[in-house]
Amino acid sequence: MDGFSFSTDVKVRFAETDAQGIAHNSNYFVWFEVARVEYLERYAGGYQRLRDLGIEAVVLETHVRYLEPARFDDRLIVHARCLDVRGARFRYEYAIERGGSVIADGWTAHATVDAETMRPTRVPSWLTEAISAAESWSSPT
Amino acid sequence: MDGFSFSTDVKVRFAETDAQGIAHNSNYFVWFEVARVEYLERYAGGYQRLRDLGIEAVVLETHVRYLEPARFDDRLIVHARCLDVRGARFRYEYAIERGGSVIADGWTAHATVDAETMRPTRVPSWLTEAISAAESWSSPT
Amino acid sequence: MDGFSFSTDVKVRFAETDAQGIAHNSNYFVWFEVARVEYLERYAGGYQRLRDLGIEAVVLETHVRYLEPARFDDRLIVHARCLDVRGARFRYEYAIERGGSVIADGWTAHATVDAETMRPTRVPSWLTEAISAAESWSSPT
Amino acid sequence: MDGFSFSTDVKVRFAETDAQGIAHNSNYFVWFEVARVEYLERYAGGYQRLRDLGIEAVVLETHVRYLEPARFDDRLIVHARCLDVRGARFRYEYAIERGGSVIADGWTAHATVDAETMRPTRVPSWLTEAISAAESWSSPT
Repeated sequence: MDGFSFSTDVKVRFAETDAQGIAHNSNYFVWFEVARVEYLERYAGGYQRLRDLGIEAVVLETHVRYLEPARFDDRLIVHARCLDVRGARFRYEYAIERGGSVIADGWTAHATVDAETMRPTRVPSWLTEAISAAESWSSPT
Repeated sequence: MDGFSFSTDVKVRFAETDAQGIAHNSNYFVWFEVARVEYLERYAGGYQRLRDLGIEAVVLETHVRYLEPARFDDRLIVHARCLDVRGARFRYEYAIERGGSVIADGWTAHATVDAETMRPTRVPSWLTEAISAAESWSSPT
Repeated sequence: MDGFSFSTDVKVRFAETDAQGIAHNSNYFVWFEVARVEYLERYAGGYQRLRDLGIEAVVLETHVRYLEPARFDDRLIVHARCLDVRGARFRYEYAIERGGSVIADGWTAHATVDAETMRPTRVPSWLTEAISAAESWSSPT
Repeated sequence: MDGFSFSTDVKVRFAETDAQGIAHNSNYFVWFEVARVEYLERYAGGYQRLRDLGIEAVVLETHVRYLEPARFDDRLIVHARCLDVRGARFRYEYAIERGGSVIADGWTAHATVDAETMRPTRVPSWLTEAISAAESWSSPT
C-alpha cells in the first residue's frame, strides 16, 4: 500500500467478535500492537531489545476510524509506518486492508520511557536509525 | 466533573494489565463502552431497547489520550457525555479520573444502523430527546 | 448460596460477548479472578498485600462447566470459596448465578510463588489464617 | 506431537500478558479456539460452513493445566485433536508446546446447537466423517 514500509496480517479470531457479529472496536489496538511488535522485529531486533535496555515504549494517544466492519475469520493486512521520531517521541500510522479495500485506519503516538521511573528517555540512536532506514524507501526524493 | 452529565466507575482488573504493569491501552475502549451502556440505561431505557427495535449503534471513530497509566485495582471514574446527535450520528466524550486527577480523556463517534442491513438509520426521536434531557443541565443558557 | 462464604457481582460487558450473541467462554476466568481479588480485599487486605511481599499467586489449573449462556448486560453473581490451603497451594471453587439459577461453575488451583524466581513459596500464615476465618462459618461442626 | 493430528502456532501478543509478566490464563482458551477454527478449516471446510447451516458449536466445559508460564513473543505450537463425536457432542484435547516442551495442556467439550433455538442438534455427518478421516491416522490399528 502506498507509503507504507511494512505490513503483516492477522485473522479475526472468534473471541474478537461481539454480539453485533463484527470485530469489537477495542481489538484494532491489539492488531496495531501486533504490527508494531513485528515491525520492530523485522527492522530493529525486536521489542524485547528495548526492554532488555530497561526501556519501555508507552502509548500516549490512539486514534482509529472504522470504515467497514471486520468479521470473524477475515484475513486483514495491517500496514504500518513509523514516523516523527523526535527525542522520546514517535508515531505510527496504520491502514487495515481486506481484499484490496481499506476498512480502517488510525495512528498511535508513543514515548520511550525508563522502565523503572516511567520517565521519558530518548529513543536509542540504533532504533532511530533502524526506523529511518526502514522508512527511507518511502520518502520523497 | 465540569460539563459531564454522567459518571460511572470501573476497577482495573488484573486481566486488563499487561507486562508493563499497567492497564493495556485497548481496555479504555471497553471502559468507554461500559459508560455508554450505563448512560443509556440511566437515561434511555438501556441499549437493549435499541437492539429490540432492530437498531445497533456502531462505532465510527475512537480517540484516547493516555495522560497517566492506570494500574491494577485502581478505581477509575469514567465521566461521559453524549453530544452532536444529528441524523444517524452522535458522539460521546469521556474523561477518566482517578483520585481527583484526569488520567485519560477521549471521544467516540457513532452511528445508529439497521441491524439487518447495517445501513444508517436515524437515531430514534425518544433517544434524541432522552439524551437532550440528560445533557440539558450542562448546556450554557 | 449454600457453602459459599463470598459473592460479588459482575455485569456482562458488550465487549465480552461474541458473534454467538453470548459471553465468550474465556471471560469466565476473568470473572473468577475478579472474585478472587475482591475475596482477598474483603478478608485479607487485598492481593496487592501479597505483591508487596514479593509474592505472586499463579494459576496452575482452571476448570469451567458452562450450563447456560450468559448474555450481554446480565447481572451475574459470582460465588467463590477458598479451600485446600496447603504449603504453597490453594484452590478456589466458584458458582455463577443469574436470577436464582447456577449458569456455570468451576474451580481454579493456585500456588504462591516468589515474584523474582517464580519458585513456590508457602502461603503466608496471615493469609492462611484469614482464609480459614473467612471459610470457617461454612464448615460442618 | 504423539497422538495429535493437527497443530497451529500462535505468538503471545503483548496485550495477552498481564502484570505478572506472563500470558494471562484466560488467553489459553482463545488459543484453543484459534486451533479449533483452523482445524475445521483444514479438515472440514471451515467453521463458517457450520454457521451457514444455522448451526453453532457451543462450549460446555473447559479445562487447562498451566505447566510453565508463556511469555510475551513466545511462539507456541498448539496441538489439537477432536474426539468422542457422539450425537451433538464432541471433545477437543490440546497440548501447547514451546521449544520442545509442553507448557500447558487441556480439553474442551462442545455441543452443536441450532443457532436459533440453542437446542442440541446432531453433528452433521459430513463433519463427523471429516473429523474421523482427520483423526484416523493417529488411531491404533
